[in-house]
Amino acid sequence: MRGRKIYLTDVPLEEALRRWLGILRDRGILRPLEGERVIVEEALGRVTAEPVVALRSSPHYHASGVDGIAVRAKETFGASETSPVRLRRDQFVLLDTGDPLPPGYDAVIMIEDVYELPSGEVEIIAPAIPWQHVRPVGEDIVATELLLPTNHRIRPVDIGAMLASGVTEVSVRRKPQVFLIPTGDELVEPGQALQMGSVVEFNTRVLSAMVEEWGGQPFRHPPVPDDLDALLEAIHKGRDHDVIVVNAGSSAGGKDLTATAIETLGEIILHGVSIRPGKPTILGILETKPVVGIPGYPVTAILTFDLFVKPLVYGFLGLPVPRREMAKAVLTRRVTSSMGVDEFVRVKLGRVGERLVATPLGRGASLISTMVRADGLLVIPRSSEGIEAGSEVEVELLRPEEEVTNTLVVVGSHDVALDVLADFLRKRYPGVSLSSAHVGSLGGLMAIRRGEAHMSGIHLLDEETGEYNVPYVRRFLADEDVVLVTLAHRDQGLMVRPGNPKGIRGIEDLTREDVTFVNRQRGAGTRILLDFHLKQLGIDPTRIRGYEREEYTHMSVAVAVASGAADAGLGIYAAARALGLDFIPVAKERYDLVIPREYLKTPLVRQALEVLSSPEFRAEVEKLGGYDTTETGQMVPL
Amino acid sequence: MRGRKIYLTDVPLEEALRRWLGILRDRGILRPLEGERVIVEEALGRVTAEPVVALRSSPHYHASGVDGIAVRAKETFGASETSPVRLRRDQFVLLDTGDPLPPGYDAVIMIEDVYELPSGEVEIIAPAIPWQHVRPVGEDIVATELLLPTNHRIRPVDIGAMLASGVTEVSVRRKPQVFLIPTGDELVEPGQALQMGSVVEFNTRVLSAMVEEWGGQPFRHPPVPDDLDALLEAIHKGRDHDVIVVNAGSSAGGKDLTATAIETLGEIILHGVSIRPGKPTILGILETKPVVGIPGYPVTAILTFDLFVKPLVYGFLGLPVPRREMAKAVLTRRVTSSMGVDEFVRVKLGRVGERLVATPLGRGASLISTMVRADGLLVIPRSSEGIEAGSEVEVELLRPEEEVTNTLVVVGSHDVALDVLADFLRKRYPGVSLSSAHVGSLGGLMAIRRGEAHMSGIHLLDEETGEYNVPYVRRFLADEDVVLVTLAHRDQGLMVRPGNPKGIRGIEDLTREDVTFVNRQRGAGTRILLDFHLKQLGIDPTRIRGYEREEYTHMSVAVAVASGAADAGLGIYAAARALGLDFIPVAKERYDLVIPREYLKTPLVRQALEVLSSPEFRAEVEKLGGYDTTETGQMVPL
Repeated sequence: MRGRKIYLTDVPLEEALRRWLGILRDRGILRPLEGERVIVEEALGRVTAEPVVALRSSPHYHASGVDGIAVRAKETFGASETSPVRLRRDQFVLLDTGDPLPPGYDAVIMIEDVYELPSGEVEIIAPAIPWQHVRPVGEDIVATELLLPTNHRIRPVDIGAMLASGVTEVSVRRKPQVFLIPTGDELVEPGQALQMGSVVEFNTRVLSAMVEEWGGQPFRHPPVPDDLDALLEAIHKGRDHDVIVVNAGSSAGGKDLTATAIETLGEIILHGVSIRPGKPTILGILETKPVVGIPGYPVTAILTFDLFVKPLVYGFLGLPVPRREMAKAVLTRRVTSSMGVDEFVRVKLGRVGERLVATPLGRGASLISTMVRADGLLVIPRSSEGIEAGSEVEVELLRPEEEVTNTLVVVGSHDVALDVLADFLRKRYPGVSLSSAHVGSLGGLMAIRRGEAHMSGIHLLDEETGEYNVPYVRRFLADEDVVLVTLAHRDQGLMVRPGNPKGIRGIEDLTREDVTFVNRQRGAGTRILLDFHLKQLGIDPTRIRGYEREEYTHMSVAVAVASGAADAGLGIYAAARALGLDFIPVAKERYDLVIPREYLKTPLVRQALEVLSSPEFRAEVEKLGGYDTTETGQMVPL
Repeated sequence: MRGRKIYLTDVPLEEALRRWLGILRDRGILRPLEGERVIVEEALGRVTAEPVVALRSSPHYHASGVDGIAVRAKETFGASETSPVRLRRDQFVLLDTGDPLPPGYDAVIMIEDVYELPSGEVEIIAPAIPWQHVRPVGEDIVATELLLPTNHRIRPVDIGAMLASGVTEVSVRRKPQVFLIPTGDELVEPGQALQMGSVVEFNTRVLSAMVEEWGGQPFRHPPVPDDLDALLEAIHKGRDHDVIVVNAGSSAGGKDLTATAIETLGEIILHGVSIRPGKPTILGILETKPVVGIPGYPVTAILTFDLFVKPLVYGFLGLPVPRREMAKAVLTRRVTSSMGVDEFVRVKLGRVGERLVATPLGRGASLISTMVRADGLLVIPRSSEGIEAGSEVEVELLRPEEEVTNTLVVVGSHDVALDVLADFLRKRYPGVSLSSAHVGSLGGLMAIRRGEAHMSGIHLLDEETGEYNVPYVRRFLADEDVVLVTLAHRDQGLMVRPGNPKGIRGIEDLTREDVTFVNRQRGAGTRILLDFHLKQLGIDPTRIRGYEREEYTHMSVAVAVASGAADAGLGIYAAARALGLDFIPVAKERYDLVIPREYLKTPLVRQALEVLSSPEFRAEVEKLGGYDTTETGQMVPL
């Protein structure tokens, strides 16, 4: 099987875009779409397809700008405090604001400056300047003047200006139609039952929402199986739309039919761009329609769609692609990359102390969660093999910097109570977020040392003393001035199949002949906890069937139990709950937050500690099960 | 009439907001709205009303991350180039990407690293590490984990994460309903015939669009006449909505009924805020609903709605009010303001040379066009009497700074050909705008001298020589290195009523007994032109009936002719066309662009000059009528 031929090219990103967009423009395919007339009141966010000119002046008559009297200015000359001018009833006209200036009059005097006399005449003590307090015809808008140019996205005030000048319909660009075809035998629609190996078709839902945000109109074809005829038929259906996108099958494997399909119906301009993720992208043309084949993993699909389809939608609208805002940040970890490939790395940003820090997120292309967590994109250019930790980097922002600044950055071991804290923070303090990166307890301590986090969640048992966290903080953060605040005590326990069919009551039962165990890897906190308890109970680990079988996460242990591969495994309640397993608590561990003392007075940390102290928060955590919040919010002496 | 009592208070803005929002919160009126369930695919842009937790892990089974073979890692130990390990057909399973890892297997080897043997066995030359190329259950998302906190605005990627983890419905905040009541006898609906004194009701259309942009749902009541009972009834109808807004009648004049109506049905918390524009704002409560009375002029309505209603809509959504981006700019003109009043000044921004310059726009509250043109808002605090020209100021951006930077700033006399230029620029160069401020020719020369504009449009006749523009540039910009480029020659002519009932053929007919003229004010370019021609023709101005009647704009002259107050006036074709008048050309004037030489090479100016040279642009200008483009785009020797 080795040596299977891959026909992908390695075209740099800018070159790929230039070549492809160039061909589309040259052939007259990529150009602003024709207009359609809509009523002005429904035109918000649409893009003008023609210049909009005023049909009527505003005001359309000489209008009084105040409540007052209309006068002839020359009849008021000479008026002063000492020699007021008296006007006869036929020399002035009472006006409200907005009333038309009667013919022959050329100024208005504010009512506050007019003395009414019993005779019905009035006296004024200052002359009127011609046209004072008059809003002449066209003061705001002159008929025939340009209100909005072509290719202008209509805002609320534009609607006002159009209506004010008699424009009630406007020609706007038709919404670019993007036809999305999900492919793959494994795909099932959301809400349908899942089999092993089946995957929810959510990519084109994300892409649809992106199209909507850009101002286009998405169309979704039902999932197409890995069958060339079916794919050809689906693509054929897309021909009436402005762009056709096939999601997945864009590589060169046995089940990758997209390139073949595009070649059958049209032409491939380019197959293979030197970006990661996203290399197996196909850029093609079907008669007069651009067709894009994008890879199947969600992160790749989203990134390549953004790179290659967004310029089309904006081009069809006659708009430039808006550039994302950039921010300078300090990279917290070394990121390696391959020469010759532009690599897009998702990063989590945080304003920690004075610095904006960027922490790379997991790079797996299958992890949609990293796109949810990401605050920015870091591009590592193809001329580079990577960027060292501590470097200043330019990051494309995916969230406004204001939101990033209002984010409490928590790095360390994950715990569900942190999710509750995140939710409470956001509810109590609008605009405040908590971001948590899951790198394990020791990873969290390192993050604090490197100044990457406001706080770190840890649960580290000292094997010597049986004490939690304090020895580790003393050892690893000896030079740092930090405090330790308890988030909660949580149960570690044995996960067993629902109903506990083997009747397991505790660690001592793990030595039973009919019980198979699944363990965590050496070094894991849960493994240390198990060994500590085995020692205390005087149990020889070799007597436990499966002690040597190692899994790397709580969830993998839970899966092993759920699938019947093992009868029991040690882990936290949340993992058991996630897979509907029974849970037998065997030990409590203290989960603490490490916080640099300097941050205690910052609003974000203060707000977090306020939440911890609140009875509502504790009640909510207790409700999760497996938690003891008696010491929640308390300072642990160091 | 003097001394009419005004009952408005003078509460500073922050104090007004604090007091009013405080009362609304204290009474439990202003708090996040209850949730409603929507399907995830329709939740884009909505705000979560509850935390969203994963219902299922993703992947929901251990999945292969590549095309390859599933193996038991321990059976591959020791494999190397020199001593490959051979696996029997029962020791491996062929997998495609995404296939489930079969029970008992714990690693995947990429197909590229597998040698197939004729026997059906395979050889590998490197050992597999446990879990390599496996995407374990929950690698992306673990069931029960927090996907999105409460009060989170849903983005495209969030839709993906929810669907991936089995969430198909989500509880989002009901859209805050804003009930908008336009009031005033003068209001007519868009598209209806206009009388003198009637005004198109467009304010609530602008406010509706603002509500939509914020994520709320607007409701519009038909215009209510100035009648207390009608107003009471309309407000009553609004009680089922979350906010009621009455537009106009919020002051304390005779026809201002809003305060009375609110007092009748509920209570007024505050009437009068020390801001300009916007002082006569009413903040009130009807039982459990906030009610806001905002002034009638469009600029004021928009600003006060933004200040007092936006925090409600965002508060109901559980979101903070997004802050506008700020930018530092140099103020080009002195702005005066009153002590004790926070004044909001609309400004036009431009990147001219190295500086971002802010030029104040017209301050009339009735000018919706200034909101269309505005790039930013400058707040002059109540502790200040104004800001000097040349000061650095902080401006709230109403357009992204990128757009501002891509704007060609033209200041000077207005001409319709500039509108055509603006439209062509935008069509040819996506994202490029032209902003033109109309301050007259001399004002334009001053703007160039102060470094406020990329170019200035002028048409200045030298009375001595009859030469256009050059003498003025030599006189006023003696120390500047500028070039002069012709935009077009345009006709000045006599505007007469349609059909030319008096049979006027030229200036010589102005002396006829049956012809009444309307003139422009002394100093106006058009007046200078007239006097120049009268002199050349040897006509004594005193022989012209109406020579002494002065109007201040082209449009006012056109209005005087259209209304029959005069038979003829001198002006440009565009003014005649705006009011449907006939036009008798009597003279050509040259309209030039003054451009500092240093800007000739900047992209914006270069693009503008390219447009001027294009036949399409000239054709479009000629189509307007009244233009001669023979010399368009040519440099005029200085």
